[in-house]
Amino acid sequence: MRAQIAFAFTIAALPAFAADDIVLRGMGSFHIGGRIAEVSGKPIKDIQRVPGGPVSKLDPNGQFMVEAMYVQYFLPKARKGKYPLLMWHGGGLTGATYESTPDGREGWLNMFVRKGWDTYVSDAVERGRSGFASPDVWSDSPIFLNYQDPYERFRIGQGAGSWNADVAKRKPMPGTQFPVDAYDNYMKQSVPRWLSTDKAIVDAYLALVDKVCPCVLLLHSQGGTFGFQVAEQRPDKIKAIVAVESASAGKVANAPKLKDIPVMLMFGDYVDEHPRWAAYKKIDTEYGNAIKAAGGSVDLVNLPEIGIMGNSHMLMQEKNNAEIAEVIQKWLASKGMTE
Amino acid sequence: MRAQIAFAFTIAALPAFAADDIVLRGMGSFHIGGRIAEVSGKPIKDIQRVPGGPVSKLDPNGQFMVEAMYVQYFLPKARKGKYPLLMWHGGGLTGATYESTPDGREGWLNMFVRKGWDTYVSDAVERGRSGFASPDVWSDSPIFLNYQDPYERFRIGQGAGSWNADVAKRKPMPGTQFPVDAYDNYMKQSVPRWLSTDKAIVDAYLALVDKVCPCVLLLHSQGGTFGFQVAEQRPDKIKAIVAVESASAGKVANAPKLKDIPVMLMFGDYVDEHPRWAAYKKIDTEYGNAIKAAGGSVDLVNLPEIGIMGNSHMLMQEKNNAEIAEVIQKWLASKGMTE
Repeated sequence: MRAQIAFAFTIAALPAFAADDIVLRGMGSFHIGGRIAEVSGKPIKDIQRVPGGPVSKLDPNGQFMVEAMYVQYFLPKARKGKYPLLMWHGGGLTGATYESTPDGREGWLNMFVRKGWDTYVSDAVERGRSGFASPDVWSDSPIFLNYQDPYERFRIGQGAGSWNADVAKRKPMPGTQFPVDAYDNYMKQSVPRWLSTDKAIVDAYLALVDKVCPCVLLLHSQGGTFGFQVAEQRPDKIKAIVAVESASAGKVANAPKLKDIPVMLMFGDYVDEHPRWAAYKKIDTEYGNAIKAAGGSVDLVNLPEIGIMGNSHMLMQEKNNAEIAEVIQKWLASKGMTE
Repeated sequence: MRAQIAFAFTIAALPAFAADDIVLRGMGSFHIGGRIAEVSGKPIKDIQRVPGGPVSKLDPNGQFMVEAMYVQYFLPKARKGKYPLLMWHGGGLTGATYESTPDGREGWLNMFVRKGWDTYVSDAVERGRSGFASPDVWSDSPIFLNYQDPYERFRIGQGAGSWNADVAKRKPMPGTQFPVDAYDNYMKQSVPRWLSTDKAIVDAYLALVDKVCPCVLLLHSQGGTFGFQVAEQRPDKIKAIVAVESASAGKVANAPKLKDIPVMLMFGDYVDEHPRWAAYKKIDTEYGNAIKAAGGSVDLVNLPEIGIMGNSHMLMQEKNNAEIAEVIQKWLASKGMTE
């Protein structure tokens, strides 16, 4: 009887937690990669450090730390993924892509951490917390997406002309899963991007892979082409690839290097009717076929074909994002990526 | 006996967790504030979307979503802070300031979440995941800190001339607590900043306060002046302020508005011998005195005076960051901010 009482006390001393708590054995962030750039011969500038304040000198010359990449990680207590899961975002976006959805629900980061994956979310070089270099180091200027661009281009609306500044006059795709009422919040995630930084971006991703892999890559859009380029250079480090609407792929000539990496190519709805996305799907499929021709394993998952309808390009943010995460999880389990 | 067996099964079904696990009832992110900017009359540009690729048109005109702020939050299961704790970073940095230290240890984010605070870490407008607007919206250009600037200016090294590209020839402060071997990683956190965006930054912070407060503000460096400006406009929403080496304060004429907000002004080592930091300390102290003259509560904490030596400007990243966090925690508890 005394033993039972002692036992009961032990139970009470454990903090209570609910099934939906997130229990982590660790979390943190780091920057990886980067290089020191030298700037010389530029004129000293006069600037006002405070609006209306005194003019002071700014010397733009010297050494600058550039092209490093920001990475944040979450390590669940109940680890079930056999390898770390790296989430790489698309063009003009940051790792925030994978966090809460524009309408405030949980995104894939939370979902995959809950499924037991050590998860690493990064901001590609020049985006988000990775920072960017000065025009003295990178010669070109960034480009900015206007308010309507993703609405019309990412299959949220019905293509060109579907946007209207008046919300009531917009034309979303019929049956869209995108949280269209939160489109403003989606656009707040948008960041500028450069057109000349692909090599720097890939170099930093390679540094990340060299640090934390073997691993599984979850790629979206422009992150797809970076991920395939990295896999071609580190095929032994990448254990599986899930490419969600990869905007272009790797080099077909290099595709045989991926023959030992199971690959899933996933696409949402309305793809075949949209010239831009149909073209990317064709490129990705040809790359996948080249991997298969070399003896590899590639699964093309068109969501409408398995009964999941209405998805735009931003699959991780949509009303049915949990259902799509489950498709990915089951595929990863089928490829031996879970314990 | 059957009941006992059932009980034992219940225990086994609970995931085991260690004292140092982080148990969250939720985590996520959002963007707040922002506005739609109109750009018109700018010439259409020819760009190459892929290096070496075909030239295509980019229309820089239209509506753009600008000046929103990124916020990430962590909600501990065992909540002990009476209010949310908002961490605002300094100039040329992002919320990463508060995450892992440059040498990979836990930062104040983890520490205060472990202490039971609902913690919100943001990136000021134009920094990190908040993104930035085009030169068509903001007329000026960002400034970039060179590799040596914080070393000499943030009291890591012994002032001007203490930097050397050769690590062996650098002159760190005697007894410095900064992880000098990880200085490169610190500089990778550095991001550009604009000189004309103060109002946009404060507007987004106000929107955050209106969303999640009443709250406690933990401010660092440039974040201090933004925090005091916000407190002057929302005195009823701010329950306590910890200003860590605030680089300038609010307006002395407005200081009486803070008379019901307990304030701690914290400074590290070597401040009085460094003209720049001595000047900020004087400004902050005068602001604090004006709050006190109006009947408020202000505590000036000079760390060396309580036996904590060797701290640079980056107190949350130093070898003794846990010890300093404890000073803050005890002060917050003494002001009734914990449950």
